[in-house]
Amino acid sequence: MIYPKPVQNLIALFTKLPGIGPRQAARFSFFILKENNSFLQNLISALQEAGKKVSVCGQCFRTVERSDDAPLLCVFCKDSRREKTIIAVVEKESDMQELEKTSAYHGLYHVLGGVISPLDPESPKRLHLKTLHERVRTLLGTNPEVEVILATNSTTEGDTTALYLERILEPLKNQHQGLKISRLGRGLSLGSELEYADEVTLKNALTNRK
Amino acid sequence: MIYPKPVQNLIALFTKLPGIGPRQAARFSFFILKENNSFLQNLISALQEAGKKVSVCGQCFRTVERSDDAPLLCVFCKDSRREKTIIAVVEKESDMQELEKTSAYHGLYHVLGGVISPLDPESPKRLHLKTLHERVRTLLGTNPEVEVILATNSTTEGDTTALYLERILEPLKNQHQGLKISRLGRGLSLGSELEYADEVTLKNALTNRK
Amino acid sequence: MIYPKPVQNLIALFTKLPGIGPRQAARFSFFILKENNSFLQNLISALQEAGKKVSVCGQCFRTVERSDDAPLLCVFCKDSRREKTIIAVVEKESDMQELEKTSAYHGLYHVLGGVISPLDPESPKRLHLKTLHERVRTLLGTNPEVEVILATNSTTEGDTTALYLERILEPLKNQHQGLKISRLGRGLSLGSELEYADEVTLKNALTNRK
Amino acid sequence: MIYPKPVQNLIALFTKLPGIGPRQAARFSFFILKENNSFLQNLISALQEAGKKVSVCGQCFRTVERSDDAPLLCVFCKDSRREKTIIAVVEKESDMQELEKTSAYHGLYHVLGGVISPLDPESPKRLHLKTLHERVRTLLGTNPEVEVILATNSTTEGDTTALYLERILEPLKNQHQGLKISRLGRGLSLGSELEYADEVTLKNALTNRK
Repeated sequence: MIYPKPVQNLIALFTKLPGIGPRQAARFSFFILKENNSFLQNLISALQEAGKKVSVCGQCFRTVERSDDAPLLCVFCKDSRREKTIIAVVEKESDMQELEKTSAYHGLYHVLGGVISPLDPESPKRLHLKTLHERVRTLLGTNPEVEVILATNSTTEGDTTALYLERILEPLKNQHQGLKISRLGRGLSLGSELEYADEVTLKNALTNRK
Repeated sequence: MIYPKPVQNLIALFTKLPGIGPRQAARFSFFILKENNSFLQNLISALQEAGKKVSVCGQCFRTVERSDDAPLLCVFCKDSRREKTIIAVVEKESDMQELEKTSAYHGLYHVLGGVISPLDPESPKRLHLKTLHERVRTLLGTNPEVEVILATNSTTEGDTTALYLERILEPLKNQHQGLKISRLGRGLSLGSELEYADEVTLKNALTNRK
Repeated sequence: MIYPKPVQNLIALFTKLPGIGPRQAARFSFFILKENNSFLQNLISALQEAGKKVSVCGQCFRTVERSDDAPLLCVFCKDSRREKTIIAVVEKESDMQELEKTSAYHGLYHVLGGVISPLDPESPKRLHLKTLHERVRTLLGTNPEVEVILATNSTTEGDTTALYLERILEPLKNQHQGLKISRLGRGLSLGSELEYADEVTLKNALTNRK
Repeated sequence: MIYPKPVQNLIALFTKLPGIGPRQAARFSFFILKENNSFLQNLISALQEAGKKVSVCGQCFRTVERSDDAPLLCVFCKDSRREKTIIAVVEKESDMQELEKTSAYHGLYHVLGGVISPLDPESPKRLHLKTLHERVRTLLGTNPEVEVILATNSTTEGDTTALYLERILEPLKNQHQGLKISRLGRGLSLGSELEYADEVTLKNALTNRK
């Protein structure tokens, strides 16, 4: 069945959203086009406003509201109670929120803006890597101890990205004894049973016992 | 953690899309805002174009590309090979596509634009009910036999909607012997086993045996 | 890791139970062997008693408690309120229970004792087919109308079995106008939505509309 | 629907197996009773043999084949290449197998035979607790360093059990500096994403970073 061209275009764009297939993209499109255009207009306005008013923090790259101040810093980067010598490197901004929810982290963040894909040699260029290196280098100039937590996902791409980051930061580590590079702990997650855990996780749980 | 206001607005709107919770709405927003604005601009353009160029069929209410012809009819409603005296009433346009995929249906459609919710007395007003009644009445004026298939989902809301439609069409049925109102068959779906089927489905399967 | 031989034997046997893999079979074995032998002894006794005292109904092949009466009939086959001219043919005894739960069936049953597998030419020999044919033939001698409901699963094996049964009963049908062979209705199951239904089910739902 | 008494007894027993509900217990029973009694007899024999020939290791309580030697030791407890001063305490024997599969553990085991349930004050009595205490005490008499790994599940019952074990072993720890009590590492399991991890697991992952 062929939809009108403008509907097809919408569906094609929605299919690019993370986790959305053609079927749900079609549902979105018909939902948006059904609603007497009030939702449609609201969505256009919200997107336009976001495009105009949203920028990213000049230090950690999370989204912030654009202002006249320069350079633009987010509330965390401006917050004097945050530990400025600990940086958790996350793949995307929503991961920050998950770490914040734990109330167990009081350092700063660095939003990479994606992961390194072993299949896509261009992928490193799209990430905020140089700025991370520079940020850590500057911190080491004035602080005896700096920690970078590679808080990427426990997936193939997350691990590849963490390895890449380690390699990039290694020269700094060789120069500065005070640079510590760590990764999130691996092991049993809450509620997991030995019987259903995979071997890698069990091995990590044994190695990281304490 | 507080996101910038324009990001919050976007998340709030995406949460209204069918099947989308706040977490995925946040992922959408960060995905859209990350992409150097090319995706953002493309989405705005696609939405604007859809708003301008998409209208609905004057007879069955599926989406069509706007044109100068009036009244506007979709390809199905214009297609002379389709059986014009059979109308499948569906909740939303994507359900049409599912029925088309079977290649077993050759009649026309009527897109209600939603369901009747027992909890929302305003819900009938938002559906294309009057136009359905009028469409069936007109057909009965020139055709001895007309069938309306109530092709709503097998859910509480779908069943409520079908019951409501039956009540609306009943006066026409009393006047015209030739009006047949049917519902999609109920019973075992492909691959289902008696052991895991619910009692209502098994009862339907027994009653509808043939 | 190698378990003691008797434990391995137990695991191997439990793996033959429907739906049980080696991991759960091991859990069963350790559970049974752990329990200070009280569970083990109870299970052995229950199995021995079942082996001694359980037989099958001479007419429908469901399990019954052995007695001195001959031939042995189950409570359904003896129940004068049951419609004796309707026979639901089920794959296994637990399927009877599902049909009984609906309270919508008042005929008798015939437990085949399995399905016909297209890959196993010996499979028909293991089923109660001849006795079904004989049972239907006898009924037709004294009743003007007899119905056989092929209540097999909506799976490939269930469908193959139903087709095989139809072929076996066809000669009787050619001789007796009063023999009706039916199958459980196919269509949407309770709660299913058009959008997530498979094409075959939707086609059945359209064809079996009413 | 009422099954014959011996069938009901079987179903009731099978329902006690870990993870088995009444429906699957019924399937097991009909499967066993259907099979011309060959499976039934094999199962009875296997259970009888297991009851006669299977005993448990006098040190770690995993199952072993009974023999004339006394005391009976399993292959691990007899294996001189295993590290005798590291004991992984597991809930049940199948958990041993999971740890063995990792090839990352070379110590010995102690099978508790269950967990401590906060709701069942009798539950500690059913576990091999005293023997664990005695085993650790004896080891500490001849070894400067002993490690007990509390390898229980990351569930409420597993955690309760580990806490209980810690309390039991605490007096020994106070007397012997060389006793180390550890737990399996907690954190992200293989393949898990920050976005879908629960807060406790993320907190553990942060705390246990390295």
